[in-house]
Amino acid sequence: MIRYARLPTGNGPVWAQEIGESWDLLDAAPYDGGVSTGRRVRNPGLFLAPVRPTKIIAIGSNYWDHAKEMGKPVPTLPKIFFKPPSAIIGPGDSIVIPPRTTRVDHEAELGVVIGRQATRVPVSDALDYVFGYTLVNDVTARDFQAVDGVFARAKGFDSFCPVGPLLVTGLDAGNLPLICRVDGQLRQDGNTADMVFNIATLVAFISDIMTLEPGDLISTGTPAGVGPLHHGQMVVVECPAIGRLENPVVDRDDR
Amino acid sequence: MIRYARLPTGNGPVWAQEIGESWDLLDAAPYDGGVSTGRRVRNPGLFLAPVRPTKIIAIGSNYWDHAKEMGKPVPTLPKIFFKPPSAIIGPGDSIVIPPRTTRVDHEAELGVVIGRQATRVPVSDALDYVFGYTLVNDVTARDFQAVDGVFARAKGFDSFCPVGPLLVTGLDAGNLPLICRVDGQLRQDGNTADMVFNIATLVAFISDIMTLEPGDLISTGTPAGVGPLHHGQMVVVECPAIGRLENPVVDRDDR
Repeated sequence: MIRYARLPTGNGPVWAQEIGESWDLLDAAPYDGGVSTGRRVRNPGLFLAPVRPTKIIAIGSNYWDHAKEMGKPVPTLPKIFFKPPSAIIGPGDSIVIPPRTTRVDHEAELGVVIGRQATRVPVSDALDYVFGYTLVNDVTARDFQAVDGVFARAKGFDSFCPVGPLLVTGLDAGNLPLICRVDGQLRQDGNTADMVFNIATLVAFISDIMTLEPGDLISTGTPAGVGPLHHGQMVVVECPAIGRLENPVVDRDDR
Repeated sequence: MIRYARLPTGNGPVWAQEIGESWDLLDAAPYDGGVSTGRRVRNPGLFLAPVRPTKIIAIGSNYWDHAKEMGKPVPTLPKIFFKPPSAIIGPGDSIVIPPRTTRVDHEAELGVVIGRQATRVPVSDALDYVFGYTLVNDVTARDFQAVDGVFARAKGFDSFCPVGPLLVTGLDAGNLPLICRVDGQLRQDGNTADMVFNIATLVAFISDIMTLEPGDLISTGTPAGVGPLHHGQMVVVECPAIGRLENPVVDRDDR
């Protein structure tokens, strides 16, 4: 298990690898072959979103219990949609609730980061194309999702894709707890073992449609317990092996 | 009116500006402030897709006559969805029909390329954020679109986003003919004057949701006349001010 972060420095964001109690700065993203620069940081303080994807593919209704709570049938094929890279924020950044929506929900998800270009890979090889894992909060304006049918507006607002805190390799991602708390109250308490379509199946399915590039992010769906976020709250997505992705919630200034 | 292209060279793709009968090579994308390198090319032969977007936002049902032919109401707000950058191909590249779909359609569209970062811009200023215009074929697996509800699979296959041939500034984009021919037969014969939501309205609406980056592509919807594509055909999207975007159609090897 290796843990990577993206850290702010005087020269802009830099990738880093955890070595004991310090962070070894890299010359490129780890999934692009980044190696040590020899410089180290001891207490980074702040982490940035540990992804720079060319695209974000998210999966709808991919946990049995969440499909049930939404009153939707479990899909017979993975239901994919996109979130725009402009929606990404890092740990500690604010989720901003835009005007007019009446309900913005958290959705705690495991994020899969691609390590090698993947086109039409079979399920049996699919995990070879995964670099590592992170956490995603697939923030969703639930009312816009229902009205629009398509998801781009409901899931595409700036700040609607918190990611982090770390990018971790070497995990068995088929059995990870996935937790969401709002102001300390437990909202989601799932496990990746309950996915309808597992990670290998998702990577293979998506790569049969579109070429996945190194760094691309797949957000693998959310377990039951989604619920509304309000101005002033703090939402935490958590998985022991990856860490805690904490984001305050604020209303947009024109709301 | 200035016309830009992306050209293949021995050193990889290079942006270029048309000067008389030759192409002046630039040191960066024109929307990123690229300037002349002093090198010129006379007969480039091949054009690449003249866009490198961080995201592609497309608009559904944005022409009165197309909404009608699809049996859909004209939307009261722009209906936005994403296509992945991995779907982009250039002029002359093949549109590849994947297995299982029973109907893949052409959709001739005007592409808007963003010139400056745009967040929450008013309609009155929105055209200041547009760099120029190109042509897009929003290729769509119609049956997958109907089955899935969301559009990511239907519109996201590799090769489903031909773009080009040129990126043109200084056009009045409110009154441009938009034509599609398949094997010489006229399929679509529209005009951008018939958009439900005009370009300024689209840019303002999208930028209220998500930050648009320089180079981002908005595909503004298709007029009536969409129809199926088959292996062996040649599809041409055309607008006199921008040029002809020609793409052959082939079946994927596992179809």
